[in-house]
Amino acid sequence: MVVESEPCSAQPSSSPPIAAPAVAVEVLRARAYLSRVAEPPAAALGVFVAQVGPVEAAERVRRGAVPDAVRAATGARRTVDRIDADLDAAAALGARLLAPEHPGWPHWAFAAFDNAGVRELAAPLALWVRGPASLLEVSERAVAVVGARAATGYGVHVAGDLAAGLAAAEYTVVSGAAFGIDAAAHRGALAARRPTVAVMACGVDRAYPAAHSELLARIAATGLVVSEYPPGAVPARHRFLVRNRLLAGIGAGTLVVEAGVRSGAQRTAADARALGRVVMAVPGPVTSGLSAGCHELLRHGATLVTRPEEVLEAVGRLGIDLAVDRPRPTRATDHLDKAQAAVHDALPTRAARDPRWLAMEAGLPLDVVRAGLIDLERLGLAEYRDGLWQRATPRR
Amino acid sequence: MVVESEPCSAQPSSSPPIAAPAVAVEVLRARAYLSRVAEPPAAALGVFVAQVGPVEAAERVRRGAVPDAVRAATGARRTVDRIDADLDAAAALGARLLAPEHPGWPHWAFAAFDNAGVRELAAPLALWVRGPASLLEVSERAVAVVGARAATGYGVHVAGDLAAGLAAAEYTVVSGAAFGIDAAAHRGALAARRPTVAVMACGVDRAYPAAHSELLARIAATGLVVSEYPPGAVPARHRFLVRNRLLAGIGAGTLVVEAGVRSGAQRTAADARALGRVVMAVPGPVTSGLSAGCHELLRHGATLVTRPEEVLEAVGRLGIDLAVDRPRPTRATDHLDKAQAAVHDALPTRAARDPRWLAMEAGLPLDVVRAGLIDLERLGLAEYRDGLWQRATPRR
Repeated sequence: MVVESEPCSAQPSSSPPIAAPAVAVEVLRARAYLSRVAEPPAAALGVFVAQVGPVEAAERVRRGAVPDAVRAATGARRTVDRIDADLDAAAALGARLLAPEHPGWPHWAFAAFDNAGVRELAAPLALWVRGPASLLEVSERAVAVVGARAATGYGVHVAGDLAAGLAAAEYTVVSGAAFGIDAAAHRGALAARRPTVAVMACGVDRAYPAAHSELLARIAATGLVVSEYPPGAVPARHRFLVRNRLLAGIGAGTLVVEAGVRSGAQRTAADARALGRVVMAVPGPVTSGLSAGCHELLRHGATLVTRPEEVLEAVGRLGIDLAVDRPRPTRATDHLDKAQAAVHDALPTRAARDPRWLAMEAGLPLDVVRAGLIDLERLGLAEYRDGLWQRATPRR
Repeated sequence: MVVESEPCSAQPSSSPPIAAPAVAVEVLRARAYLSRVAEPPAAALGVFVAQVGPVEAAERVRRGAVPDAVRAATGARRTVDRIDADLDAAAALGARLLAPEHPGWPHWAFAAFDNAGVRELAAPLALWVRGPASLLEVSERAVAVVGARAATGYGVHVAGDLAAGLAAAEYTVVSGAAFGIDAAAHRGALAARRPTVAVMACGVDRAYPAAHSELLARIAATGLVVSEYPPGAVPARHRFLVRNRLLAGIGAGTLVVEAGVRSGAQRTAADARALGRVVMAVPGPVTSGLSAGCHELLRHGATLVTRPEEVLEAVGRLGIDLAVDRPRPTRATDHLDKAQAAVHDALPTRAARDPRWLAMEAGLPLDVVRAGLIDLERLGLAEYRDGLWQRATPRR
């Protein structure tokens, strides 16, 4: 038996939501049960599901017929059956449950979790997603942009600019919808009219923080609001840290814009590094405590970025997405050779002098000075008058 | 025959100037002649002096009996004899000529010039120095602090703070006495009551910029004003670039505080790298063009520094001068184990709950929750009342 999840049309979206592709209903129901029965990251349960499959895993968890590690993680909630309630709550919101069995599951993003071999970085058992975008597609070229909630005006400005630049280059900005840097990053991407992804530490039916309910609605209208927590789940503190690994995993790189020396953003960066992702940080004033975390990351090997191009170079295709250095100011004297430059340097701007005086001043042979003066005159950099030379301003 | 150079007592110094140690007068006179006859960097002349010694080199340069490369570099000025005038001018100012034959010559600082094998980095043939400090002693633990003339208030503040911190750690701050970062660095060192060294692009008898004549006098009162140009030499533009290699050479590391993307400070950093010295840069706002040069250096391998301790770690003794990470804010919950933290996280701050509710919320077995609650109560992090638990604020 096969179902399509049916997003509710009440969804405030300009384009119609894309239904999650077909997956056997018993698999989807098993994943719904599993996503609630253990508190993420559920490493032991993940291993068990991989061994026996989601349907048998769910059935055996319910009965308590599981290895000890799985029992410890699922014992408290195994008798709770909210499968229908959760799927209905999601559908009512235009959200759906995305399972690893879906063709749209971003296996690439989560393969690194298994490779990292760190229990805290266990892959999610399923994801509740809200919005029309395909998580697989948007995570193909994605950067996590994270940072302090109590960001400065500088951080908010830079986060918005970088996110807009990344979005304009068709990269997906992934963040956590928090105050400060997160919100600025989402807004920058939205301003560039590109979908952005918010990964939540609570159910996708909750607006957290409440002041961001409109921002979350805008994100869900074209991009995705994502959570591994079932509908109704509250944003407990440890869930933010647990959630951060998903930001780090979905992004090809994690960019920290502003962060204190002990911050969630630094944790996300640590997760990104453990997952083999690129870690980038934006520098700021050394007098700002909110740049201190960034500077610490940079001192420990993160890539310093100041412009979207530099982010793209760090996360982009090897040898293709190279950032060109900033254009340099040029001067009329740039292409002079050594002797010409020395003669030009010796030329007075006001009083004119003869070649012999210039040779002494520049410490050069007289014939070299004479040749240099001819060159400089041709370039409009020296003026000859009554046997004497002085500096000239080049014609534009 | 042997002389002591006699610094003039008109020198505005609190401590008496230290005379340069004894060197044969004919050597000193030869070096005085050589220091004026070629425009630095005088690589070919340096090689010739190393081959035949300064006295014979001077005599043969005067006659024109030299290899072609030396003739090209000395031909224009070889008949100029200002030896007595230059030595007298220096003495009148309380300055002296320091030659490689002096025991106080900082061979370590300039040995790297020969090793670099770059003609532009030729070692100086002699140095005119003004002030009581020993160049050898002050350059044993020295850092070049350089940056933009048109520095921002941020850059000036940070340069002064870093310089004061380095000086307090008994490092010598070496800079170029220019407006902006240079002046802030010298002032920071002076504020910490430590000698500082200014390396000039003109004669040590000239105050350049003129507005810094008082600053230069303060530097010369306890530290050193240094130049490879003879008295009276004017600060021609190329001399600043040529001078920069001496800053880079005297410092064990070069610290760039603020710099544009095409700047003298970046050139000094390039010289420092070529000389095998540590290159450091201070980050700043990515929105500031005066930090763009620093960020470019950092993206190309310079060490990011934000505090004097980090500079000392970079230039200091291996494994000894380690910068300790900034102290981290601590929380009462820092030492909780995973289960304790999960229980604490689940505890409501207002309404109290029973252990069964908490087990469900935390996704933990009931016995684990009960044990955790006992631990938390002992730590003052949980409160028990009428069979129910809630979060408590720890006693200080």
